[in-house]
Amino acid sequence: MKITRMHGAGGKVMQDLIKEIILSNLERTSVNGGIGLECLDDASTIPIGDKEIVFTVDGHTVKPIFFPGGDIGRLSVCGTVNDLAVMGAKPLALSLSLILPEGFDIEKLDKIMKSINEACKEADVAVITGDTKVSNVDDIIISSSGIGVVDKGKAIRDSSIKEGDAIIVSGNIGDHGLAILLSREGFEFDADIKSDVAPLNKMIEMVLNEGIEIHAMKDPTRGGLADALNEMAEKSGLGIDIYEERIPISEEVQSIADILGIDPLTVANEGKVVMAVKREDAERCLEILRKHPLGKNAEIIGYATKEHKGVVMETIVGKRVVDTPIGDPIPRVC
Amino acid sequence: MKITRMHGAGGKVMQDLIKEIILSNLERTSVNGGIGLECLDDASTIPIGDKEIVFTVDGHTVKPIFFPGGDIGRLSVCGTVNDLAVMGAKPLALSLSLILPEGFDIEKLDKIMKSINEACKEADVAVITGDTKVSNVDDIIISSSGIGVVDKGKAIRDSSIKEGDAIIVSGNIGDHGLAILLSREGFEFDADIKSDVAPLNKMIEMVLNEGIEIHAMKDPTRGGLADALNEMAEKSGLGIDIYEERIPISEEVQSIADILGIDPLTVANEGKVVMAVKREDAERCLEILRKHPLGKNAEIIGYATKEHKGVVMETIVGKRVVDTPIGDPIPRVC
Repeated sequence: MKITRMHGAGGKVMQDLIKEIILSNLERTSVNGGIGLECLDDASTIPIGDKEIVFTVDGHTVKPIFFPGGDIGRLSVCGTVNDLAVMGAKPLALSLSLILPEGFDIEKLDKIMKSINEACKEADVAVITGDTKVSNVDDIIISSSGIGVVDKGKAIRDSSIKEGDAIIVSGNIGDHGLAILLSREGFEFDADIKSDVAPLNKMIEMVLNEGIEIHAMKDPTRGGLADALNEMAEKSGLGIDIYEERIPISEEVQSIADILGIDPLTVANEGKVVMAVKREDAERCLEILRKHPLGKNAEIIGYATKEHKGVVMETIVGKRVVDTPIGDPIPRVC
Repeated sequence: MKITRMHGAGGKVMQDLIKEIILSNLERTSVNGGIGLECLDDASTIPIGDKEIVFTVDGHTVKPIFFPGGDIGRLSVCGTVNDLAVMGAKPLALSLSLILPEGFDIEKLDKIMKSINEACKEADVAVITGDTKVSNVDDIIISSSGIGVVDKGKAIRDSSIKEGDAIIVSGNIGDHGLAILLSREGFEFDADIKSDVAPLNKMIEMVLNEGIEIHAMKDPTRGGLADALNEMAEKSGLGIDIYEERIPISEEVQSIADILGIDPLTVANEGKVVMAVKREDAERCLEILRKHPLGKNAEIIGYATKEHKGVVMETIVGKRVVDTPIGDPIPRVC
């Protein structure tokens, strides 16, 4: 058996590889009774004293490395910060592992480092450790790990949706993946789609500070909203009903996705969060989110149910099952 | 300006890149007054309560990925564990970012994961978070971050050698780099050199548990012993005198290095530590180290001095300055 693009694309093929080859070989996947690798949540935790250290990692191989709305530097910071933020943690510090191709322009590296610095300032995190290697890669690769902190027992899981919970998406979906796709050679659309890549921690903090109890949270990156909702539903042992008309999406993204035959529900986002909150908290949560620039298009897109498993979407022509995508339709999106 | 192999090779060229392009662009490089990126130590720290979280990262691009004595999996675990251990920390958890080429044999990945598991058991650490990407790389790349913990204020620096300190090396130098080099195509030596790749945390713990006060510590990886000693001396504002005849090195490594014209002092190690301890503690420290299988060839190789800066080695034909290497003589060694 050989590795294919699908093994790195989010979705079912990657999940199977992780379970069969990675998890099955590792005997120790958690520390001090914290959330471990086997939970396959956005991050894991290490209880220390009255806190939990939250720990995550992302490898970034996005192509092209500079794209409308961002670059691999900003993506590295935001991808890692967001994995900590959706655990309810305060992100503190990042590590950066740079893998550079021989012949890489040092001016490009300088530009990427400046972008990393700006994103760190937005997210209020520091890069405290790093490593640099030169290898046979077609472009720069950045792996970033992140450390955050949360009060003991307060980490928010992706697996704890409760029956009846409202499901909220913080804004328009599909922008990141399509911005990447259209910036590649060969696409001649007259479109102005920018990646949504942004750190979500400040917005999520606002919601938590207002006392909204977030039952479950996840950022819909590779595999898009379809993958995130399915994972949350499956882990929570519930189903989710969503309503197509309520899903926030720009006209431009919708029409280009239609032309390309791509389901925008499966397209990666890098500045969006999916939250499950008590139905009676939903409107207030929405209000708080909409006060933040990154949440201005937030919507309640559906509800959790015990009636069925999986994700079912009501459309104008009837209901359809939204499956876990086999992989992200756009390779090297993050 | 373009990136060359030397920018990833340890040594002066890499240090300049890090200072001029990476550090100079980042405004926040430490958290809560902990040890930050700007210290360029083996790891950084985040003070939390009465502890410090110790954080490090290494990207691994070693070629070949399977080599005598180890593989990229074992190397990833040990490289990261050792960066934590030389800070005096207890390593707890690792993150793994796997970058896989398309077409990579899943059996090879399986073998690497088994090796990671074995090394984790040896070091008593867990892999608690991970990420998998598929990209245009010539072979698997693994970036691993690590979290450890140390009592507040007890982290051991690479910059705090004191005048008169004995400098100890825990065993034979040069094995890792030469094992890698000889396992590449084109070398037809009839030699049996194995990488020394191993987790050092248990051995270092033994020394600390016996009450030896380690003033400064570092693992001599890329750039070898020459790089580690120069960095420690420069940061400590002292000089180091070493004695060639006391430097532990196998006859095989010495003779092959001679034939190839490589200075073994500049060759990477992956299972060795350099310690600076009070002169009166040195013999006892040596005894403790030698009780551990990884420390059986430990030696006191010299002493710190105020008489000069830099590293000076006494040889049978007189003294010579041991400079910071420009880069590691063997590319893609870790």
